[in-house]
Amino acid sequence: MIIQSEIISLKHLLTVEALSDQEVMGLIRRGQQFKLGAPWAPQKNQYFVSNLFFENSTRTHKSFEVAEKKLGLETIEFDARSSSVQKGETLYDTVLTMSAIGVDVCVIRHGDENYYDQLIQSKTINCSIVNGGDGSGQHPTQCLLDLMTIYEEFGHFNDLKVAIVGDITHSRVAKSNMQMLKRLGSEVFFSGPEEWYDKSFDVYGTYKPLDELVDNVDVIMLLRVQHERHDDKESFSKQEYHEKYGLTVGRSKRLKKKAIIMHPAPVNRDVEIADSLVESLQSRIIEQMSNGVFVRMAILEAILNGIS
Amino acid sequence: MIIQSEIISLKHLLTVEALSDQEVMGLIRRGQQFKLGAPWAPQKNQYFVSNLFFENSTRTHKSFEVAEKKLGLETIEFDARSSSVQKGETLYDTVLTMSAIGVDVCVIRHGDENYYDQLIQSKTINCSIVNGGDGSGQHPTQCLLDLMTIYEEFGHFNDLKVAIVGDITHSRVAKSNMQMLKRLGSEVFFSGPEEWYDKSFDVYGTYKPLDELVDNVDVIMLLRVQHERHDDKESFSKQEYHEKYGLTVGRSKRLKKKAIIMHPAPVNRDVEIADSLVESLQSRIIEQMSNGVFVRMAILEAILNGIS
Amino acid sequence: MIIQSEIISLKHLLTVEALSDQEVMGLIRRGQQFKLGAPWAPQKNQYFVSNLFFENSTRTHKSFEVAEKKLGLETIEFDARSSSVQKGETLYDTVLTMSAIGVDVCVIRHGDENYYDQLIQSKTINCSIVNGGDGSGQHPTQCLLDLMTIYEEFGHFNDLKVAIVGDITHSRVAKSNMQMLKRLGSEVFFSGPEEWYDKSFDVYGTYKPLDELVDNVDVIMLLRVQHERHDDKESFSKQEYHEKYGLTVGRSKRLKKKAIIMHPAPVNRDVEIADSLVESLQSRIIEQMSNGVFVRMAILEAILNGIS
Repeated sequence: MIIQSEIISLKHLLTVEALSDQEVMGLIRRGQQFKLGAPWAPQKNQYFVSNLFFENSTRTHKSFEVAEKKLGLETIEFDARSSSVQKGETLYDTVLTMSAIGVDVCVIRHGDENYYDQLIQSKTINCSIVNGGDGSGQHPTQCLLDLMTIYEEFGHFNDLKVAIVGDITHSRVAKSNMQMLKRLGSEVFFSGPEEWYDKSFDVYGTYKPLDELVDNVDVIMLLRVQHERHDDKESFSKQEYHEKYGLTVGRSKRLKKKAIIMHPAPVNRDVEIADSLVESLQSRIIEQMSNGVFVRMAILEAILNGIS
Repeated sequence: MIIQSEIISLKHLLTVEALSDQEVMGLIRRGQQFKLGAPWAPQKNQYFVSNLFFENSTRTHKSFEVAEKKLGLETIEFDARSSSVQKGETLYDTVLTMSAIGVDVCVIRHGDENYYDQLIQSKTINCSIVNGGDGSGQHPTQCLLDLMTIYEEFGHFNDLKVAIVGDITHSRVAKSNMQMLKRLGSEVFFSGPEEWYDKSFDVYGTYKPLDELVDNVDVIMLLRVQHERHDDKESFSKQEYHEKYGLTVGRSKRLKKKAIIMHPAPVNRDVEIADSLVESLQSRIIEQMSNGVFVRMAILEAILNGIS
Repeated sequence: MIIQSEIISLKHLLTVEALSDQEVMGLIRRGQQFKLGAPWAPQKNQYFVSNLFFENSTRTHKSFEVAEKKLGLETIEFDARSSSVQKGETLYDTVLTMSAIGVDVCVIRHGDENYYDQLIQSKTINCSIVNGGDGSGQHPTQCLLDLMTIYEEFGHFNDLKVAIVGDITHSRVAKSNMQMLKRLGSEVFFSGPEEWYDKSFDVYGTYKPLDELVDNVDVIMLLRVQHERHDDKESFSKQEYHEKYGLTVGRSKRLKKKAIIMHPAPVNRDVEIADSLVESLQSRIIEQMSNGVFVRMAILEAILNGIS
């Protein structure tokens, strides 16, 4: 049972860094309760949630939709390609419209970093904003589902060794994960192509070649090579990337028995990770997707607590 | 409470002009009741409404969807781009399909004027049609939400001075508004570029330069410059339009204290209206969007009364 | 009432040929019950069904959606064009995601024949698959609604003479229909362009010129000319096709009084069938669409019986 002091109430969810440790742990634990089938009693008859995805998405979009329907919320889907966005309407005026027609919560994925700033400053927009990803910026619900998956496995974050591997500079979630994991007591390591690593990450962890890491880590988090965010041609082939920076079958055999493999997906099979490892025993990639639904239920509940 | 004699029953809603004054006032008052939270008890367990938008829309489409869900109706969304329309299926055969699979009401926006004629003449199509806009023709639900917003403000239409300003010839709603406002006792004025004005409108009101109107009107209705419906390049820049025909901050200061500003949106900010006025105290643009949900609930209820 | 022994339970529905005669008849009879308003009591509070249509569809897609909502299921719509499919995600990984986020049933239309093989072999994908059409392969729910429509008309299949006319080689449903009709005791005939006929069909019926068939058949099933599946230009104009292979008004007058006209739609009016015959008294084309909803309810119920 969630104890009284853990009832979380949020106006918006924009970044995970803005949450207190207590809020993060409360959301994770509430997600676990939803996974076990905890009921939710809405305080109002009908809530409207609109999912505004301006960038392609399957997992985040659809798991929000399932989470909303599990909570009994009314979902209003939005397709920018058949909307007034085509007549030049801005994000601001689109969200203003949603607010005016009675939408309580907007879940938004948009290519502009910090798109939400002008929305939350508006005195006319009444709805809560849940950030489903802003450009190369934040992806707080992905971070929370990653944390839930680790917590579910180990029961704590303290002194866990976590490797974050791959396209770190382009990853919305890598930056949140490194900060949150360090804050919660884990030891963070980085690997992957050096040109995709930034010295500023040194504050949160240590860069090492992958082969110096695989034997020792508790968690290996692989990141998707985001071909769509790379301006120039990559300097290595898929096979080269896999051999140099990917979790090959060979490297996987050196992992500790209790170590787990994570990836936010979609996976480039045989690039970041060998095809056969995606659904292997040590992989938690499927579990991450499942947990995404439950942690998003916890987040939406916290937002609705903030409204009620 | 709505009095017995005001229960409205419609087979279709195609044009606002076809409604009696009593029906118009009944729908407006029912919209106000829904706004205050009046409940609605469907007479059948399940009704199916399909939203078929063949032209881009945010406000109309999404406020219909919210209205439907507030009434507890089942919504069937339709996306022409992933439908058999791509195999050459006509609007007629698409609506025939919807009717055959059990859809009770089709809300349709389509680029062809009077697209609905062949639909309502069909003996095979059983569903009711609600016109969500037909080309440059009619947009009855927008007209009704405009009327509701004015009625809500002033409590009557009698002797109100209403200015309709801008791209009148291309506006679906301007033509309905001028007729209905005159019918209900208001005095109508027109302004905007003379090339976007048609002498036939003289029956309903008087054309004047904007600067001769702003001091005296109770309502100023600005119309969106519909770039997508203009074949040739406009003869003025956005700034020129704003200075000559738009509601500038300067002009807004000359409005009567109790005058209200309206716009069907999406707004071209700083073209038809100064950016800072959109969400100002005298603006009812947000209120129009909100009222759109409630008047559409009233319309759908009247249609379902017609079915039951 | 459905008798106890007729409760059908399916893990997947991939091809109609894999069903026993008892299962086929049970689904048809259950569809008839749903048509008469039979209630359905789900055994679990909430089921999630995702409709994944990778090819354009109105009828199949929307009648599945209505069927799902009539059964009180939660529908998750999927639009490949705004999904991670755009980042290269495969069908396998898309369905894996749906399974992971809690989707119980995936209704899939996809251009690849036998796309479902790898899905049902996966140990990680838990959801049931309902085939909504695979390339030029199978379309089992269309076959079942055709059979339901014939059974509804005649009360049996025995010794019925059924002509299947037109683009047989490209028709997903023609191949299923010929096999099932023969299995259930009907006599099958074929007609249409000889280049669209394959000798292998001789096992199931007899090819004849249309004019030798129209006087004698109980059912004439016209097939859509699938322009989108023909690589080269057709060798005849629409008018030529209609005159040679179509159901003209002239030919229709030679049909037996009790014969019925069927077409899976969308219809190319005045090609496969004269415009005026589509909604005529002997046509069951509208009825086919209506029956599609009810037989799909029966199928989904059988699948949910398989889950519960």
